[in-house]
Amino acid sequence: MNDVNQFLLHAKDRVEAAIDRLVPTPDHRPGILHEAMRYSLMAGGKRLRPALCYAAFEDCGGVGEASDWGAVALEMVHTFSLIHDDLPCMDDDDFRRGLPTCHKKFGEAMAVLAGDALSIYAFQVLSRSGNAEAVSLLATALGSDGMLGGQVVDIQSEGKPCDLATVDYIHLHKTAALIEASLELGAVLAGADGARRSIYREYGRSIGLAFQIVDDILDIESSTEKLGKDVGSDVENQKATYPAVVGLGESKKQARLLVARAVELTKQMGSRGPVLADLARFIVERGN
Amino acid sequence: MNDVNQFLLHAKDRVEAAIDRLVPTPDHRPGILHEAMRYSLMAGGKRLRPALCYAAFEDCGGVGEASDWGAVALEMVHTFSLIHDDLPCMDDDDFRRGLPTCHKKFGEAMAVLAGDALSIYAFQVLSRSGNAEAVSLLATALGSDGMLGGQVVDIQSEGKPCDLATVDYIHLHKTAALIEASLELGAVLAGADGARRSIYREYGRSIGLAFQIVDDILDIESSTEKLGKDVGSDVENQKATYPAVVGLGESKKQARLLVARAVELTKQMGSRGPVLADLARFIVERGN
Repeated sequence: MNDVNQFLLHAKDRVEAAIDRLVPTPDHRPGILHEAMRYSLMAGGKRLRPALCYAAFEDCGGVGEASDWGAVALEMVHTFSLIHDDLPCMDDDDFRRGLPTCHKKFGEAMAVLAGDALSIYAFQVLSRSGNAEAVSLLATALGSDGMLGGQVVDIQSEGKPCDLATVDYIHLHKTAALIEASLELGAVLAGADGARRSIYREYGRSIGLAFQIVDDILDIESSTEKLGKDVGSDVENQKATYPAVVGLGESKKQARLLVARAVELTKQMGSRGPVLADLARFIVERGN
Repeated sequence: MNDVNQFLLHAKDRVEAAIDRLVPTPDHRPGILHEAMRYSLMAGGKRLRPALCYAAFEDCGGVGEASDWGAVALEMVHTFSLIHDDLPCMDDDDFRRGLPTCHKKFGEAMAVLAGDALSIYAFQVLSRSGNAEAVSLLATALGSDGMLGGQVVDIQSEGKPCDLATVDYIHLHKTAALIEASLELGAVLAGADGARRSIYREYGRSIGLAFQIVDDILDIESSTEKLGKDVGSDVENQKATYPAVVGLGESKKQARLLVARAVELTKQMGSRGPVLADLARFIVERGN
């Protein structure tokens, strides 16, 4: 897995440099808003979505700065979703990646506005590419038929008995949609055609769903220390999860099947295929 | 002012039909999110921003559906800003246009998500034009150097003594930026060049600032009944307003000067110039 770590670290360095270049500093008015945006953007994380965007872009022969705009936009919308998710009226989380959440640090009003600003700024950054299709793709992945749709159904399902179709809907929309979009965005920014795009899309959908299933498993099996967030909170909040619906064993099996499908798809890719295959395997191994 | 009323009513009918066509209905999952989005979108209002977008588009000889996408996107982002502004952690308003605010009707979590979905959906709708410049323009008008920047400085200024420069910053960003963008968006969607765009931009900036100054004046002078919202709330919350900084008489004078400048600019416009001149006058007269 050395290659995967290298690959993730490289993307992390690159997207963090691009964020630093593209997001206004706190000495630009209103300083507090830019500070809050940067605080949450720079709070760490694996930068998985940017890494996927860079990989698909390079795999499709893309050159130039466009993948940076895609990668930064993805990290911005991901961060926006975390900030709003953590709000008292949503999951009410005090810590994220071992640090106080945005509303704990800057107050609730500023957290709402910093999230708003990040989601809007993502489209500003992405529009630099001159590619309206890229804008459409990201907006669709985020909207009511994408990530936000998943969040709503997730909230509605809390504390209620839940079936597999609903858990699938939530995971495919809340998590997989943006991971899928990360890959497709890289391909679109590189000018890939429809047939190539669909390979990345299906790969993204497979690892995205696997990623969330493994997250559900980890929530049960891991310790607080290891993840830096409250563990077992999904069970406490009676969240819709794979293990709750199909059991731990079946959940692990499903994750493995999805990863196998993703690995299969990487055979149709170019030079970045092997590392994307390793990345898919890395996702399940995280859960073992 | 018959022409202005006609003009506003026509735009209102048109944009409401386009909203109904473009926003998913509550029978699409997640129904509650679409219901909340539509509830706030359809809660009324003059539809000033869409009307301005249509006018600039037609004035620049634009044809086709593109102005509908711009007009719907503008109403979506305007509604998004109202929903989040009304939240308990922001202005904590229970009523808007005589109806319960989104969070009063659907709960706080759903109001946050409905606002988020509207701001994202605006970019999806606008991207149909294939015009990445239009996306950039709207995002810039909304972001930390636009509307959201104004909101942050507004919040920071509450309960503190405030100078004219700060009130100008707040009004130009919080209110005028989106009105300015409404006109420029119409021009861009019609394919207007930079010189023409700057005429609409300055007109928009002038009426936008005048509009907010008149709003400040009305907040002091009008009755609750007439506006359908809590009146005098700005004074109660010690909000940064023009009358608080320069007095009522000087505020009225400034509004008149801005409108005169806007009317002057309409002489450089085409067939929609006269109605845009009347609209500018209508804004000040609202306050008399």
